[in-house]
Amino acid sequence: MHKLVLVRHGQSEWNLSNRFTGWTDVDLTEQGIGEAVSGGKLLREAGFSFDVAHTSFLKRAIRTLWLIQDEMDLLWLPVQKTWRLNERHYGALQGLNKAETAAKYGDEQVFVWRRSFDVPPPELDPSDERSPANDPRYATLAPEEIPLSESLKKTIDRTMPYWFKVIEPQIRADRRVLIVAHGNSLRGLVKYLDGMSDEEITQLNIPTGVPLVYELDENLRPLTHYYLGDPEAVAKAAEAVANQAKGG
Amino acid sequence: MHKLVLVRHGQSEWNLSNRFTGWTDVDLTEQGIGEAVSGGKLLREAGFSFDVAHTSFLKRAIRTLWLIQDEMDLLWLPVQKTWRLNERHYGALQGLNKAETAAKYGDEQVFVWRRSFDVPPPELDPSDERSPANDPRYATLAPEEIPLSESLKKTIDRTMPYWFKVIEPQIRADRRVLIVAHGNSLRGLVKYLDGMSDEEITQLNIPTGVPLVYELDENLRPLTHYYLGDPEAVAKAAEAVANQAKGG
Repeated sequence: MHKLVLVRHGQSEWNLSNRFTGWTDVDLTEQGIGEAVSGGKLLREAGFSFDVAHTSFLKRAIRTLWLIQDEMDLLWLPVQKTWRLNERHYGALQGLNKAETAAKYGDEQVFVWRRSFDVPPPELDPSDERSPANDPRYATLAPEEIPLSESLKKTIDRTMPYWFKVIEPQIRADRRVLIVAHGNSLRGLVKYLDGMSDEEITQLNIPTGVPLVYELDENLRPLTHYYLGDPEAVAKAAEAVANQAKGG
Repeated sequence: MHKLVLVRHGQSEWNLSNRFTGWTDVDLTEQGIGEAVSGGKLLREAGFSFDVAHTSFLKRAIRTLWLIQDEMDLLWLPVQKTWRLNERHYGALQGLNKAETAAKYGDEQVFVWRRSFDVPPPELDPSDERSPANDPRYATLAPEEIPLSESLKKTIDRTMPYWFKVIEPQIRADRRVLIVAHGNSLRGLVKYLDGMSDEEITQLNIPTGVPLVYELDENLRPLTHYYLGDPEAVAKAAEAVANQAKGG
């Protein structure tokens, strides 16, 4: 039996200011730092340890991982970072306030961009300074891999090759894997593991900073999954995420 | 022309309590944290950036790197950790107070263990709880690679394969490399780069937290090297390290 742990990063600065974040590299808030530390404590107290960790190229996820490593006294853990675990790219909406965007495009359109499975927001102009093409951390991506906007579907499509090529072989080799990432890249993993429909996955809200444990059989099929910590607190955290403006 | 930057971790808890540290995984002191932050600031202000960083399996080096990454806004930087960049293993002396050790073995013997090139301190017993064989982070090492004690020579002998196999090819591929490590593993790199004798390298004291920049030609031969920052402050830092009890 294998155990895999997923953690969604804690609250970020733009969660707080209610702006579309996507690939914008904003940091954790004080609350987000607290959520990450709590996640690390839950893992330590439950006796977890890891052999390798994976995270995105975005600092709100990396810092969440660092805080967990610190809490678990696992600074030495090998960490692999990949753009494939990044949040969904929110295109030309990145940086815009969600209320202002609704006023400009209408509530219904914004609802579709935020809650549909396969409708991407308006694309960034390739010359836009917000384009990943202008950021050295994405210099190794092929031009066709650089997103200018992503639907949830497109996000999942670029996340899953990393699961199949990198993470799955490690789990099969009995390495204990921790993944610290974002609401939508984690949705991709959960959709695959639990065989959820396109509609179901758009309804799933993973709470921030709460370790989500999957127990997998020898074929990596989930036997069960559960959140660590007090169930009432976990339910509250999921509700808070569901009620808050979405988009990562 | 290539640039390579070396940084020695800041003051650790056992520097402060004057104990032999070696592979013991002690953390930075407040002063050590400040030294790491200063190193990061110097790099940022001098316009440096990096494509990859290397560090040891020990948290005083990893945390120094994290603080530099934070100061330079480079959390996304790929980081490779290796036991080959660890501090010299201090054998059965690890954890002992340096003054008490001198009282027990005599000043002369301790001086030889600390300042000779090729005399290792007494070995740890393989069953000792301090043995790296009992630490999961070293589980991938071959039994003959696990040290029970190291001279400076032995430390350099296990550090350099990592230079030749991992770091050198990256520099040749024009990647900008940062190495954050320990007094004695860095001595190995400096000895090789500057062609220093066995005697010369035992006299070299690298100050903590001060970026040491090497400019290398296309054959990776050093054109020059220099410390970042105010030369008087650098000289003082080197002197402080030389005067303090040695052993990492």
